[in-house]
Amino acid sequence: MNYPSQVLELVVNEFAKLPGIGKKTALRLALHLIKRKKNDLVFFSESLLKLANDLRYCTLCHNVSDSNLCEICSSFSRKKEQLCVVEDLRDVMAIENTQQYFGVYHVLGGVIAPMEGIGPDTLNVNSLLKRVETGEIKEIILALNATMEGDTTAFYISKKLQPYDVKISTISRGISVGGELEYADEITLGRAITSRVNYGG
Amino acid sequence: MNYPSQVLELVVNEFAKLPGIGKKTALRLALHLIKRKKNDLVFFSESLLKLANDLRYCTLCHNVSDSNLCEICSSFSRKKEQLCVVEDLRDVMAIENTQQYFGVYHVLGGVIAPMEGIGPDTLNVNSLLKRVETGEIKEIILALNATMEGDTTAFYISKKLQPYDVKISTISRGISVGGELEYADEITLGRAITSRVNYGG
Repeated sequence: MNYPSQVLELVVNEFAKLPGIGKKTALRLALHLIKRKKNDLVFFSESLLKLANDLRYCTLCHNVSDSNLCEICSSFSRKKEQLCVVEDLRDVMAIENTQQYFGVYHVLGGVIAPMEGIGPDTLNVNSLLKRVETGEIKEIILALNATMEGDTTAFYISKKLQPYDVKISTISRGISVGGELEYADEITLGRAITSRVNYGG
Repeated sequence: MNYPSQVLELVVNEFAKLPGIGKKTALRLALHLIKRKKNDLVFFSESLLKLANDLRYCTLCHNVSDSNLCEICSSFSRKKEQLCVVEDLRDVMAIENTQQYFGVYHVLGGVIAPMEGIGPDTLNVNSLLKRVETGEIKEIILALNATMEGDTTAFYISKKLQPYDVKISTISRGISVGGELEYADEITLGRAITSRVNYGG
């Protein structure tokens, strides 16, 4: 496509690099930005620059943070002996939204995916083992996605954790609340039956 | 949603202001940006700043441009007596891609849409009339979308142009090339019949 302006083309190309955004959508977004106030555009630009310069990662749990220790890790009200292992910060946010978990987290930064070249070494597994070595942690909850990669990663971590004296659990799989049996897939329903719990508990 | 970082929240909110992008998609885009190299992010930020500061509009046709006169208006090979009236720059790009039009353009910057508060005064209609007044223009092609708003705008402009000695035409409506009659809607098919042309011409 021939753009009437090189500046516009630059922005369209940058938007088109984002996942799920093609050239046509990128152009639509750029045109929307042009129509807005100039100050809004400057603010957008500055917020991206801030993201590049000011974003930190928690040195303990590797979650995105504004300082070297995230709010959860530095909170006195969280149980430091309970550790929830997740893939990325979206999972942390999802679990936090439930308001049912009061321990701390460990963000792996991905899952083992050999096809994409992601091995255990690129994930934050070693720092997890170091945290366990201190003996502070009593329970580890593996809260990974119920996918092939998530299960593989959970298996790998559980093997690595065997030498240590920690209780390892995973979040339960089953029928979602409000879900109907006849619409559940066979594997989920099968798992829900095999991992049945006592009624009322 | 509670974000683990204010810097991240800032960027997510900015992305979520764009059309068709909700909070979840915005977060996905922001996380994608974090994973890329820092330089890429700085470059993205700078390109937006350039868009805010360096983008110009052609003083003649109101198309987006890098200078005060766009490439098309300043080209010697374009027919200056033929003027194509379009809604926005995407239409210019679409027509340019056909490589069938060699005149110049006039970008209205929208169409008359009373429901959205867009009246004729907010569009570049007066500057169009001024261009026509010079007597340079012999033909005006109204290439507006085949919507209610597009037709209304075309009607308004054609009325405004009546006092001047210019030929006014609109792009033809009809069955798209490769299209089958049985799948065309009634209105399109009806228009295609009433505005039939001589075979071979």
